[in-house]
Amino acid sequence: MNIAVLNGPNLNLLGSREPHLYGTTTLAEVENRLRQVAGELGVSIACAQHNGEGELVTAIQQLRGKADGAIVNAGAYSHTSLAIRDAFAATALPYVEVHVSNIYAREPERRTSVLAGGAVAIIAGLGVAGYEMALRGLVERLRSAGA
Amino acid sequence: MNIAVLNGPNLNLLGSREPHLYGTTTLAEVENRLRQVAGELGVSIACAQHNGEGELVTAIQQLRGKADGAIVNAGAYSHTSLAIRDAFAATALPYVEVHVSNIYAREPERRTSVLAGGAVAIIAGLGVAGYEMALRGLVERLRSAGA
Amino acid sequence: MNIAVLNGPNLNLLGSREPHLYGTTTLAEVENRLRQVAGELGVSIACAQHNGEGELVTAIQQLRGKADGAIVNAGAYSHTSLAIRDAFAATALPYVEVHVSNIYAREPERRTSVLAGGAVAIIAGLGVAGYEMALRGLVERLRSAGA
Amino acid sequence: MNIAVLNGPNLNLLGSREPHLYGTTTLAEVENRLRQVAGELGVSIACAQHNGEGELVTAIQQLRGKADGAIVNAGAYSHTSLAIRDAFAATALPYVEVHVSNIYAREPERRTSVLAGGAVAIIAGLGVAGYEMALRGLVERLRSAGA
Amino acid sequence: MNIAVLNGPNLNLLGSREPHLYGTTTLAEVENRLRQVAGELGVSIACAQHNGEGELVTAIQQLRGKADGAIVNAGAYSHTSLAIRDAFAATALPYVEVHVSNIYAREPERRTSVLAGGAVAIIAGLGVAGYEMALRGLVERLRSAGA
Amino acid sequence: MNIAVLNGPNLNLLGSREPHLYGTTTLAEVENRLRQVAGELGVSIACAQHNGEGELVTAIQQLRGKADGAIVNAGAYSHTSLAIRDAFAATALPYVEVHVSNIYAREPERRTSVLAGGAVAIIAGLGVAGYEMALRGLVERLRSAGA
Amino acid sequence: MNIAVLNGPNLNLLGSREPHLYGTTTLAEVENRLRQVAGELGVSIACAQHNGEGELVTAIQQLRGKADGAIVNAGAYSHTSLAIRDAFAATALPYVEVHVSNIYAREPERRTSVLAGGAVAIIAGLGVAGYEMALRGLVERLRSAGA
Amino acid sequence: MNIAVLNGPNLNLLGSREPHLYGTTTLAEVENRLRQVAGELGVSIACAQHNGEGELVTAIQQLRGKADGAIVNAGAYSHTSLAIRDAFAATALPYVEVHVSNIYAREPERRTSVLAGGAVAIIAGLGVAGYEMALRGLVERLRSAGA
Amino acid sequence: MNIAVLNGPNLNLLGSREPHLYGTTTLAEVENRLRQVAGELGVSIACAQHNGEGELVTAIQQLRGKADGAIVNAGAYSHTSLAIRDAFAATALPYVEVHVSNIYAREPERRTSVLAGGAVAIIAGLGVAGYEMALRGLVERLRSAGA
Amino acid sequence: MNIAVLNGPNLNLLGSREPHLYGTTTLAEVENRLRQVAGELGVSIACAQHNGEGELVTAIQQLRGKADGAIVNAGAYSHTSLAIRDAFAATALPYVEVHVSNIYAREPERRTSVLAGGAVAIIAGLGVAGYEMALRGLVERLRSAGA
Amino acid sequence: MNIAVLNGPNLNLLGSREPHLYGTTTLAEVENRLRQVAGELGVSIACAQHNGEGELVTAIQQLRGKADGAIVNAGAYSHTSLAIRDAFAATALPYVEVHVSNIYAREPERRTSVLAGGAVAIIAGLGVAGYEMALRGLVERLRSAGA
Amino acid sequence: MNIAVLNGPNLNLLGSREPHLYGTTTLAEVENRLRQVAGELGVSIACAQHNGEGELVTAIQQLRGKADGAIVNAGAYSHTSLAIRDAFAATALPYVEVHVSNIYAREPERRTSVLAGGAVAIIAGLGVAGYEMALRGLVERLRSAGA
Repeated sequence: MNIAVLNGPNLNLLGSREPHLYGTTTLAEVENRLRQVAGELGVSIACAQHNGEGELVTAIQQLRGKADGAIVNAGAYSHTSLAIRDAFAATALPYVEVHVSNIYAREPERRTSVLAGGAVAIIAGLGVAGYEMALRGLVERLRSAGA
Repeated sequence: MNIAVLNGPNLNLLGSREPHLYGTTTLAEVENRLRQVAGELGVSIACAQHNGEGELVTAIQQLRGKADGAIVNAGAYSHTSLAIRDAFAATALPYVEVHVSNIYAREPERRTSVLAGGAVAIIAGLGVAGYEMALRGLVERLRSAGA
Repeated sequence: MNIAVLNGPNLNLLGSREPHLYGTTTLAEVENRLRQVAGELGVSIACAQHNGEGELVTAIQQLRGKADGAIVNAGAYSHTSLAIRDAFAATALPYVEVHVSNIYAREPERRTSVLAGGAVAIIAGLGVAGYEMALRGLVERLRSAGA
Repeated sequence: MNIAVLNGPNLNLLGSREPHLYGTTTLAEVENRLRQVAGELGVSIACAQHNGEGELVTAIQQLRGKADGAIVNAGAYSHTSLAIRDAFAATALPYVEVHVSNIYAREPERRTSVLAGGAVAIIAGLGVAGYEMALRGLVERLRSAGA
Repeated sequence: MNIAVLNGPNLNLLGSREPHLYGTTTLAEVENRLRQVAGELGVSIACAQHNGEGELVTAIQQLRGKADGAIVNAGAYSHTSLAIRDAFAATALPYVEVHVSNIYAREPERRTSVLAGGAVAIIAGLGVAGYEMALRGLVERLRSAGA
Repeated sequence: MNIAVLNGPNLNLLGSREPHLYGTTTLAEVENRLRQVAGELGVSIACAQHNGEGELVTAIQQLRGKADGAIVNAGAYSHTSLAIRDAFAATALPYVEVHVSNIYAREPERRTSVLAGGAVAIIAGLGVAGYEMALRGLVERLRSAGA
Repeated sequence: MNIAVLNGPNLNLLGSREPHLYGTTTLAEVENRLRQVAGELGVSIACAQHNGEGELVTAIQQLRGKADGAIVNAGAYSHTSLAIRDAFAATALPYVEVHVSNIYAREPERRTSVLAGGAVAIIAGLGVAGYEMALRGLVERLRSAGA
Repeated sequence: MNIAVLNGPNLNLLGSREPHLYGTTTLAEVENRLRQVAGELGVSIACAQHNGEGELVTAIQQLRGKADGAIVNAGAYSHTSLAIRDAFAATALPYVEVHVSNIYAREPERRTSVLAGGAVAIIAGLGVAGYEMALRGLVERLRSAGA
Repeated sequence: MNIAVLNGPNLNLLGSREPHLYGTTTLAEVENRLRQVAGELGVSIACAQHNGEGELVTAIQQLRGKADGAIVNAGAYSHTSLAIRDAFAATALPYVEVHVSNIYAREPERRTSVLAGGAVAIIAGLGVAGYEMALRGLVERLRSAGA
Repeated sequence: MNIAVLNGPNLNLLGSREPHLYGTTTLAEVENRLRQVAGELGVSIACAQHNGEGELVTAIQQLRGKADGAIVNAGAYSHTSLAIRDAFAATALPYVEVHVSNIYAREPERRTSVLAGGAVAIIAGLGVAGYEMALRGLVERLRSAGA
Repeated sequence: MNIAVLNGPNLNLLGSREPHLYGTTTLAEVENRLRQVAGELGVSIACAQHNGEGELVTAIQQLRGKADGAIVNAGAYSHTSLAIRDAFAATALPYVEVHVSNIYAREPERRTSVLAGGAVAIIAGLGVAGYEMALRGLVERLRSAGA
Repeated sequence: MNIAVLNGPNLNLLGSREPHLYGTTTLAEVENRLRQVAGELGVSIACAQHNGEGELVTAIQQLRGKADGAIVNAGAYSHTSLAIRDAFAATALPYVEVHVSNIYAREPERRTSVLAGGAVAIIAGLGVAGYEMALRGLVERLRSAGA
């Protein structure tokens, strides 16, 4: 089973970016931790980060036939990008949406996610631990669906 | 460390209620699994379910001085109950909000949660596995905060 | 065939409560009339009234396996209670919604019903005669569906 | 006592039009049944159907001094026609609004009725049986008011 | 100079229709008075009333090349009819909109007029005297424009 | 019978102010014409113009016991001033609202009048002739009410 | 294959009505061109125009069993007429909606079409050529569906 | 004269609940102070607190024939509970609404009160002193009305 | 301790203005009563009334260094005046907002107060007694804050 | 005459992406067909597809002086991209907007197009045939404008 | 070239009013600096400040024929005053709007300016330096327009 | 001190793009002028322009540790891009937002800026001179903050 982990704009700065909101763990550390958990779960993962909406669309398209599911934190694009949602629909790829902070306790423009309506699940506010929860939850979901 | 697990209206019917939306696992099975995970994590949990909003308010108030955190699925009250949110604020109890289904992919009136703004985190759409993720995430959060 | 008749908050005061709006017939008289009509129709009915939203949820849950349909006037909760609507969905119980007054000719907050979207039918403005119409209509509907 | 029964646009196709929504009984059959019930109740009825909004306005105006009440299903005009509502107000004719389907469980634009605010009562979702209920309810209402 | 006077749905009942709102002068009396004023002003007028929106559209179209201006009280269609507004635009006919009652002091749905945006002027609340004011004002306007 | 004519902010510039919208007649000319018409009608009028909202409130208050009705063009305050509407209510003074341009064909913020709901009538778009129409209409209305 | 071409209010004035918006081709010319194209395509067409909403409803109803599809420009009714949309649904007739001007570049009230949600397709802004495109597109669609 | 004092959800925690918002005086202390003031005023009071909306409805109903007026702080239910407002209407009981904090300076969802429209008066932001002001004001109002 | 009492537009007519809404006590009587209560409380008060928004702004500015708090009934400006709110903020003057009538039971445009968000407290609906309650409450608040 | 054909995000997947919505014809096939039609019409075309909004902006800018018109299906960006609309305005390039599916019969967020307001025309719902219709219509429009 | 500098309500308190928002420079210091810059630029300026909306209207009117442009900070009236905007339109005076703080980063009611739509330019958030920038920018604009 | 100047989509066409809106000065000329002013002010500047949102995000990220402030005209992205705002927040870079035209006098979708809420200041409508004003203002602001 192959799982893609996709991060969007400004998440390359995780760990140094507004740490009171996003904590001090870097994206590299998050990805390392996810690789470790993936090893435990017996799945392989591939991680990527892009600042551009179109690049994220392309990255999702390229997962067709290669990934069984995805974990996505599209950052600010989460709130507006129908193109990313369409890319997931076009590739028929199940995905769990993750947010490091609790977006529902922030400014109004961050309280709705265009991606959530197409997602399997959404996890927000657990800090970087949310990625791990998403990986565990998605794998469990895919395995029970495949059973 | 003591964690309370609170379920709201109609969640006593979990497993038999609209299984295409909520699955076939019963609330008792969910609570048993949570007790098992709690054992692994070395925390104790107490579970309760109420159909009444006022009863949920009272139940939360009674956690003062007894619980360190809560996992709550307030069901339909999630979308309207300021009283439940106030009860958490009045008891200063950190909580993770759980929804079995992905509420953001459902009818408009289910896409906003009055409780989310006061929560530590929200997990929606992972099925009953969301409770376990919430327990793991909350305990990790409380432990790292306490460190 | 068993039909439940459920009344919500303040309907215990029917007959004395704002009679220019709700008339002078008491709830007991309404229920007696309904029992008489039920007798004519060859169905049995059970009547209950609750002021609490949670109590109404519980009452609906307890109809599972016991009632074939329900007539409900949820009073003020009609306009806000997703929990009551969920209880009907969870028990898969067909129901006709009744209002004594024409709610569509009253204050804006009374002109929408959260329950109506899940109901078989809605009758508003016929005074207490609406209950009888609902009973006749529901029985006819259930019988023709069962045919 | 004279009761008018008015049907609006597309209701002439009742029985063949989208039967999953509106059933298979034709308008002629509905009107026959209503004549039979009227006979039982000792009232006379006159039935008409028009596709035009202006024709419905004219038909209502012509009831002045001839009818004591009306049963109206204005179809799609129910949701927009202030002119039909004005016609009823101008003729001071009490009316019960009927809808074959439960308009509150359909598309948003069908969930409000411009006519409802001026009506005695509204019955929606009982199928064609709603017309009979409306006739019985209206006659009862007019007789008790006349008593 | 030829002026058309067009009245819409239910205005044929003027004088007997809700007299507390619309007064007791009949449409015939209004039209007679307008003919008298037209005589004083040296213009000819033609009066018509229709209950149908399409009939009003057709009537306006037929004024092309025959009328220099119009006075219109489209009744309930004033608040919704883009088709009537289009008919005036299609015939390039200047018109003054009249309302017997002060529509801005009535129900919200009567406080906006789709026709007003295309009109030369609007007069509301002067009772049936508003028609005469409109005739005097329109003729003055057309004459000064023609000067 | 005494009639007050009140003009609001920037109407002292009438005639020179944006003549494509408001024409070239000055306020002094309007007032002279109104005095002439008042003479014909056998009523006396008093005219005033103020740029300040509070000054208009005071001016209206001072009409108590002195004026039988008023003609008001409150200019830009028409769209927002509850204080001016309150002043009319406090003095129980019937008034006709006048606008030189057709405010319903202008920018959205000019299409609603806070004053209109309390007015006897509103005339907009007849140019400065609207004042004369308002005077004639108001006197006729007051005389017929007094008859 | 039989195709109906239906035009709504004011489209009988095409060619002379606001030519900067709608061009100078008359409706007769449009219909002639469509007959010519229909000949090429080997289908027969029947054209009609009505100013009345109810007449359009009736016209659509009469196509049942006679037409395989329709091309409709309902003019101003496009933006409000649920009755016309219902007529198409009641007759299960596929239709392509045409607008001569680009309605999405015009006033806000013209930017939504009640008919579009039920249409096969919509073409707006191609001038009268849009009718021909609609005919070609609809025939192609019906033929490929029938294959 | 008998006055009821009713407090809603979470007000049993007054004094310890978010003291920066609600102060440090307990509900028991508030009720004692009110009893003292009632003594001075020569009226008797009865105090109650409930976390449940239905319980508050029932408590209000039971005041019929026993209380002459009420002071109510319905806490979070103030912003949503039509049922509580209906209970007051059903019992025809005049009431003053009290809020310890200035709800109009808080989050948007706390800035409207469903109860305020039916209340005699509302006092918000005076801290627990607001209850005493309400008691004094209500007694004065009831006495002057009774004079 | 010095307290300012400021009244806004039309409140100089208190007692004679719409007495069914505002009672029959004049502003002079209100101010006399407040002076008497101030004497009891050992504070000095200064009263003023202005019809102009700018005059109220100036009056508030002139309280800097002279008053310790204010009681304000800004009348119709309460619902719109950011300038008055800014004047209080600029002078850092704590104030209690008073309304004679229950503004929350009146027309929608009177149900929100721009001033309330900056006020210490708001009292509405207690009639002219509200001023006295405000004075007592404000002095108590200022004294306990100063202790 | 040179015509550009621009496709936006996810349209490179046409034919395999959600075929129930978008059909089974690939983008390459669409472009081949367009080249064939262009040949018939005697115009040259150039086709491109980009997933990135900025890349589409750049591509449009590069058409300045090279293309006479464009056919654009901007996919998900159609609903939000002011930058693409600005690019067309900046290059003064007339364009026809195409959508394969009928966007007006889909989710609300797809029912408005930011691009439509600046377009010559819009064609939606004709499947991939819409591109050909757009090409024919645009060429006809450009030729008649150039005549 | 003559430039007017107009300040609105509460700006006379600049320097002492909420210095964390507006800084510590007084209005007199701002005006002195502007006079110095005006000297450098070879233009003359006249400064005024008013708390009243009507006074600002009058002040703008009096600039007719005397000033070539204006710099205006209308304070709280910026967000609501159509009368001030009308005064500028009536005098055809180009103006630059200045705000000391960044109004777009403040409360929602301060984020829109009624004046901005009629202004040449708007500068917000540069502190009192914004006035100087506005003076330089306006003079440059007027000179290049006059060239 | 290092200042970055960032321009967004379509601003590379400045000078030739819609000159009635944006003038005839090219971006190169603007940047040259800014370099000259920077020289006068003793600061260094670096200029860049990108059509892609992601590229702008990346460009802003790369300013971390290199620039002390930024001047940004994000063109059409100003109205929607939370990602660009987040990039500034993530790099803690103070910025002044510039618009060549007065965006508040244009179409509604251009009247709000997502970036403005995070900016130091906003300048709109001064033409290309706005960039220079922004540079002068930002440097002054940074220097006084650094003092």
